[in-house]
Amino acid sequence: MSNEVFSNIPEIKFEGPDSDNSLAFRHYNPSEKVGDKTMAEHLRFSMAFWHTMNGGGSDPFGADTAQRPWDSVSDPMEQARIKMRGIFELTEKLQIPFFCFHDRDIAPEGETLAKSHKNLDEIVGLAKTLMKTSKTRLLWGTANLFVHPRYMHGGATSPDLKVYAYAAGQVRKALEVTKELGGENYVFWGGREGYETLLNTDMKKELDNLAAFMHMAVDYAKEIGFDGQFLFEPKPKEPTKHQYDTDSATVYGFLEKYDLLPHVKLNIETNHATLAGHTIQHELHFARINGILGSVDANQGDTLLGWDTDQFPTDLYVSTLMMYEILKNGGLHRGGLNFDAKVRRPSYTVQDVVEAHIIGMDSFARGLKAAHSMLTDGVLEDFNAQRYASWNSDLGKKVAQGKATLAELEKSVLNDPVHVPASGRQEYLESIVNRYI
Amino acid sequence: MSNEVFSNIPEIKFEGPDSDNSLAFRHYNPSEKVGDKTMAEHLRFSMAFWHTMNGGGSDPFGADTAQRPWDSVSDPMEQARIKMRGIFELTEKLQIPFFCFHDRDIAPEGETLAKSHKNLDEIVGLAKTLMKTSKTRLLWGTANLFVHPRYMHGGATSPDLKVYAYAAGQVRKALEVTKELGGENYVFWGGREGYETLLNTDMKKELDNLAAFMHMAVDYAKEIGFDGQFLFEPKPKEPTKHQYDTDSATVYGFLEKYDLLPHVKLNIETNHATLAGHTIQHELHFARINGILGSVDANQGDTLLGWDTDQFPTDLYVSTLMMYEILKNGGLHRGGLNFDAKVRRPSYTVQDVVEAHIIGMDSFARGLKAAHSMLTDGVLEDFNAQRYASWNSDLGKKVAQGKATLAELEKSVLNDPVHVPASGRQEYLESIVNRYI
Amino acid sequence: MSNEVFSNIPEIKFEGPDSDNSLAFRHYNPSEKVGDKTMAEHLRFSMAFWHTMNGGGSDPFGADTAQRPWDSVSDPMEQARIKMRGIFELTEKLQIPFFCFHDRDIAPEGETLAKSHKNLDEIVGLAKTLMKTSKTRLLWGTANLFVHPRYMHGGATSPDLKVYAYAAGQVRKALEVTKELGGENYVFWGGREGYETLLNTDMKKELDNLAAFMHMAVDYAKEIGFDGQFLFEPKPKEPTKHQYDTDSATVYGFLEKYDLLPHVKLNIETNHATLAGHTIQHELHFARINGILGSVDANQGDTLLGWDTDQFPTDLYVSTLMMYEILKNGGLHRGGLNFDAKVRRPSYTVQDVVEAHIIGMDSFARGLKAAHSMLTDGVLEDFNAQRYASWNSDLGKKVAQGKATLAELEKSVLNDPVHVPASGRQEYLESIVNRYI
Amino acid sequence: MSNEVFSNIPEIKFEGPDSDNSLAFRHYNPSEKVGDKTMAEHLRFSMAFWHTMNGGGSDPFGADTAQRPWDSVSDPMEQARIKMRGIFELTEKLQIPFFCFHDRDIAPEGETLAKSHKNLDEIVGLAKTLMKTSKTRLLWGTANLFVHPRYMHGGATSPDLKVYAYAAGQVRKALEVTKELGGENYVFWGGREGYETLLNTDMKKELDNLAAFMHMAVDYAKEIGFDGQFLFEPKPKEPTKHQYDTDSATVYGFLEKYDLLPHVKLNIETNHATLAGHTIQHELHFARINGILGSVDANQGDTLLGWDTDQFPTDLYVSTLMMYEILKNGGLHRGGLNFDAKVRRPSYTVQDVVEAHIIGMDSFARGLKAAHSMLTDGVLEDFNAQRYASWNSDLGKKVAQGKATLAELEKSVLNDPVHVPASGRQEYLESIVNRYI
Ligand SMILES: [Co+2]
Ligand SMILES: [Co+2]
Ligand SMILES: [Co+2]
Ligand SMILES: [Co+2]
Ligand SMILES: [Co+2]
Ligand SMILES: [Co+2]
Ligand SMILES: [Co+2]
Ligand SMILES: [Co+2]
Repeated sequence: MSNEVFSNIPEIKFEGPDSDNSLAFRHYNPSEKVGDKTMAEHLRFSMAFWHTMNGGGSDPFGADTAQRPWDSVSDPMEQARIKMRGIFELTEKLQIPFFCFHDRDIAPEGETLAKSHKNLDEIVGLAKTLMKTSKTRLLWGTANLFVHPRYMHGGATSPDLKVYAYAAGQVRKALEVTKELGGENYVFWGGREGYETLLNTDMKKELDNLAAFMHMAVDYAKEIGFDGQFLFEPKPKEPTKHQYDTDSATVYGFLEKYDLLPHVKLNIETNHATLAGHTIQHELHFARINGILGSVDANQGDTLLGWDTDQFPTDLYVSTLMMYEILKNGGLHRGGLNFDAKVRRPSYTVQDVVEAHIIGMDSFARGLKAAHSMLTDGVLEDFNAQRYASWNSDLGKKVAQGKATLAELEKSVLNDPVHVPASGRQEYLESIVNRYI
Repeated sequence: MSNEVFSNIPEIKFEGPDSDNSLAFRHYNPSEKVGDKTMAEHLRFSMAFWHTMNGGGSDPFGADTAQRPWDSVSDPMEQARIKMRGIFELTEKLQIPFFCFHDRDIAPEGETLAKSHKNLDEIVGLAKTLMKTSKTRLLWGTANLFVHPRYMHGGATSPDLKVYAYAAGQVRKALEVTKELGGENYVFWGGREGYETLLNTDMKKELDNLAAFMHMAVDYAKEIGFDGQFLFEPKPKEPTKHQYDTDSATVYGFLEKYDLLPHVKLNIETNHATLAGHTIQHELHFARINGILGSVDANQGDTLLGWDTDQFPTDLYVSTLMMYEILKNGGLHRGGLNFDAKVRRPSYTVQDVVEAHIIGMDSFARGLKAAHSMLTDGVLEDFNAQRYASWNSDLGKKVAQGKATLAELEKSVLNDPVHVPASGRQEYLESIVNRYI
Repeated sequence: MSNEVFSNIPEIKFEGPDSDNSLAFRHYNPSEKVGDKTMAEHLRFSMAFWHTMNGGGSDPFGADTAQRPWDSVSDPMEQARIKMRGIFELTEKLQIPFFCFHDRDIAPEGETLAKSHKNLDEIVGLAKTLMKTSKTRLLWGTANLFVHPRYMHGGATSPDLKVYAYAAGQVRKALEVTKELGGENYVFWGGREGYETLLNTDMKKELDNLAAFMHMAVDYAKEIGFDGQFLFEPKPKEPTKHQYDTDSATVYGFLEKYDLLPHVKLNIETNHATLAGHTIQHELHFARINGILGSVDANQGDTLLGWDTDQFPTDLYVSTLMMYEILKNGGLHRGGLNFDAKVRRPSYTVQDVVEAHIIGMDSFARGLKAAHSMLTDGVLEDFNAQRYASWNSDLGKKVAQGKATLAELEKSVLNDPVHVPASGRQEYLESIVNRYI
Repeated sequence: MSNEVFSNIPEIKFEGPDSDNSLAFRHYNPSEKVGDKTMAEHLRFSMAFWHTMNGGGSDPFGADTAQRPWDSVSDPMEQARIKMRGIFELTEKLQIPFFCFHDRDIAPEGETLAKSHKNLDEIVGLAKTLMKTSKTRLLWGTANLFVHPRYMHGGATSPDLKVYAYAAGQVRKALEVTKELGGENYVFWGGREGYETLLNTDMKKELDNLAAFMHMAVDYAKEIGFDGQFLFEPKPKEPTKHQYDTDSATVYGFLEKYDLLPHVKLNIETNHATLAGHTIQHELHFARINGILGSVDANQGDTLLGWDTDQFPTDLYVSTLMMYEILKNGGLHRGGLNFDAKVRRPSYTVQDVVEAHIIGMDSFARGLKAAHSMLTDGVLEDFNAQRYASWNSDLGKKVAQGKATLAELEKSVLNDPVHVPASGRQEYLESIVNRYI
């Protein structure tokens, strides 16, 4: 069809594990039931506009490598239109139900904030039109508060009020646009909400300002009737030396302190977890038990490298343990599995991009099935029920109710011979996981 | 004197920077005024019983190397007595006003908890006697809930209620003992309050139990009239894969969630900061602005190594920026600078131990003087007052009061030409610090 | 049988993937052919005396936890005898064909070197007797030059000649003993051949001494007719700040400089690879193409932790890519897959130890089958043949022969339009690997 | 002067430590003697064209921030001319005697290699003219084989012969240009000589090709009479997952294997050292004792961050220990201290750039004086002479001559009682360094 953006990309279909077609799913079969939901219902995949439409492959030592259909188009607005059509086309071809974007991803920045809004409005109009005939929906919108030089010291934590005000304007507009497009969530990622050096930083003022900013966003959402979920995405560092939204536990403390817990959940990224020194399972588990597991940026890092490589997720251990936590969370609800992932710089063709999404989706399909079986079989669950069984005693319950005392606990063991708890059997439990991979 | 434990160690005195006596202070001059307080008042040094009396130099690939006066004493209680006399002697010779200990550092574990208490009582009695004629005081006490096999899965987060009860018994006794000896603080360090693998871990139950445990400790302190400050010491990992008390921000969130903020501050260790990916200045700054900077474990890590090396602090950048935060905190109040530090394994003589403390003390003396001058001269303070000046405007104040809106902020810049904030001048600020080193 | 050391451990047999017996192999089937060799021939597993017989589970913050049959035996020589019988029994029960040891693992150190030799001789005699009726053979022997305080500054790199001489004596004896027991290799692991600080280190002298030491060992092996393979085991750090045998490339340069390449290959450990910032596949690949891939310490690290965790290998990606390199090496020849691995500290029972070995063996069995299929199918090989095809041209061959010039290469492209090479297709290749996991 | 590029930047002069002029040296006094050479002779500073003229401050999450005099100039060749005049002006104003560049830094790439050469020739002509009236000289030249998409898989290690040939053409030309401008060295930095994944990599072929490439460069240098020193710059990773020139030891092994040691030394960068897990002192020491310490990229990393931050050097410990090694090397000879350093992204003014160089130069001036005093006083030297004294015995000498045997060494200690070497006294030695900072 002459109107196609990616004319050499076919619709990607499930062909089963024996297929050797690199442009087919081997495991992701959207309508296949896993438990009482289909794979599509479980997995809620999303495509990231910034990587898939805008990512060029540049790195600190190299220029863009990507070859894309719009490379020869010079007018930024025309490019923006092609890309918007492109993401609707590509999500449909890949059977990905959602996409997400920053304001500046989809429309070029203008000379003033007002003019930027105008650019944005035009492209959002196009998106709205495309949605009428497309299955593709918006998982979340956000505002880019980190690329422009004005944000060199942060947006909502800038020491300069004018910059803060500009950020406020972007977020106000981005909230409206997200609502307009039926977005299910709104994300904050504070790429420069942090510092380069403490020598010039008043952390208290910056954190207070950040909290005020988020409260204003919550208020404005209420004002305009946007009922999507707010999400905060942790990352410890990069681009800045230190980012305030370090990890799930840090963000939890921040939300709690500033009374934002009722309004905000987390968007947790695999690579950001490892940059913070945690496994992704840890981050998901922590968020889950604290009721703030909102959505996931599904990618993969290289733990031997110290920066955010944002690779497509292929590791089946990672996808299995992620889905394990997500299933225990009752799913991601309004959230999704967003491929905040980019092809390696030398994977510069559109086919690479498509194959990368396929691999990511197949990996999560396998992870879902493995995690579901583990939960159904209950091996880990039974082991742990036994492991913590002593807490079901009267004394255990008293501790849980906050009614026990040190003295009475001490008394229960004061003259006991040496007692050690049962083995943790980690190696055995790891072999259990291997059975399901 | 026949009764001396370290008879070859003289009293360590201030001889000034030109001395080449390795057993003298070159910078630490206790009575010297820095601002309106003496160095001794500012620095409140403490010696750690576990490293200085008990540390033998073993590592995962090597046996003890240390040569100590009590090596030939085989009776554990007799050894305990000599060591207790030893730490009083050594602190006095080094003009270190405080020491601190875990229960099991100072007296051997008995066959039952009751018998351990008895051992402890005897040695505490000795300490009390020694205190009558000594200047040395107790900075803090704590309970060792990590060495014994019973604590393999944690103490206050053990899945086994009996272990939890045993830990409760140790803490109850340790609180009494700390009170008995006039301790100014009580510390929790959760070396095994965490997990080895999430496959066998119910994090929610463990965190709930930990909080219940701390509340019981707070209650018991009130019951017995112990008015010392409770302190929680963050560390992200080691010995366990993950420790719940990861860093200052994580612990802040925990204390907040479980209503422990009114009762507990932090004991922050330099090496734990870097293991968590933070500078020590970051950790102190975060704790300071949140009102939970309680005390400091003053040591130094090797950021190219991935474990807790607990080296004696020698880096003047570190000591200067630590003292900068501490001075801005109005000092450490009831807390102190505790040398949670051990000599390198090949530094096996008592002289090495003494020289290491001297170097640590001299480094903090230099850091104190540098930080005090920086604050007095106000170069950084003035720079930052200017940097955040726009927040003194009406609009800035409105944000701070939570009365601003996104819309009104946006309006203030909607048609502005591109504006960028002032340079952060990091390199210049770093040169300022160099002027004071 | 009354004589059994591990009477509660049965013989471990292959039961297939559907077994849920934790004391059975699910994948390792020794006599099963994979290609033209049996699994047993391919995998050449080895049990490590130090971990499996001697490891107690202590860590820098905790005492031993392990419960072993010989815990109540107090005489060190009697314990040594039980353990030696134990390792023969356990290797046989687990169908592990090899074991390996340090001199001090198997017999206690005496008051003098001469007396230590005597202890060693007695236990070696026992081992020899046991070998007569056992299938278990010796993969390699080595000398422990790192535990005793005398080695605090290294053995073959000690600044103290007496220590160097003592190390020489241990190695002389260990070579004899290894020969006596039919060992197929002799290993050097330089746990303290490095430094704690450069301030007191003469690196040139230490490296020269280390090389001289290894030449003496090579000479002595020739003198006594020991024809086993010498192996050097790289590790970048821990216990020391820096170890000279950092990684494969560093050791290659050392062996080359000191004319040791003809005599020495590498024993490569997975966890040491990651501590050095490399994947194990990298280390094996580098050694393979340089002809120095000798043997493997098959374990697994936690890349989010900064120390040598020596976990049992369970990750199927790791075992698959390891076996891929090993198959391309034509196997490990005289080397083997040695489980230089220890159960987690809370996995303190003998059953944990056995289960851990089973999981390790099953993981390598799966890795072997996956790698063999990948090689047989040739997907990666074909891709790469194509990728490097341009080097088969005349000009490419000229470069390989060292006959090309910059000028002639330049001339071949001087006026060409922009040319970019083909995509690296990393994501696609990763999906290929997933097909075989 | 109307012709000035940086008209607001004055000449930077020495004003002494009490100056509070941020545009003056407080320690660097070029004509001041330190030992028998002036500071200028010792330090041989160099300015890096790529950072100082071309660096814009972009990072993976942000656009350029830098504000430079040529921002409004759109013609690339005209920009190139202004920048070349700019670097001559700035080096003179800062009293920096050298600069260095990649081919593509100083002149824009053309449509073909031939046209790129032409651009280069024109700018080199300008540089030559400027040199006639300037004190500024060329420390080294190099070719940029990493930015352009053609080099996505490497230059001299590309799997594609055409790319290799193109790289050869760039290097041929760059050698000529370096000679033309009187460059004292020629550098290889293999930013993409490595791999992203081993799945598509033939390491042996790539390393062979790299060595062939360097031999061709050596041959061509001889052919044209360029007698500068070849330098190879190690870096372990970034931009690629793995770089073959990992660290000094790895490069040493490579040079040795391929007979390049007679022709090539190292250009060692501080930040690359720490990325490889080493201190810069280690890298310099290793290179020094192997006779390959050629030149230095003097910057500073943040060891808590995992990427190449290339900060200006301010840490006095680092500069002192670097100068200590350099003085022991008899200086850097034809090499220099090149500021391969960039201002932080928020330090976007030219004044920031100038201040950053001043701080770097002052830090090395202080480091030089401290290191020179340490060597003159001989405290460390004397300590170590004593530490290794046992090697001056007959037996020690025999070892050094390769004439000793294991047996005779053993005999010398066979019946000795336990002996331990002397303390390493690391803490004391660290206090010695502190005296000189
Ligand atoms: Co993300
Ligand atoms: Co990311
Ligand atoms: Co501590
Ligand atoms: Co510590
Ligand atoms: Co090993
Ligand atoms: Co290891
Ligand atoms: Co460099
Ligand atoms: Co660099």
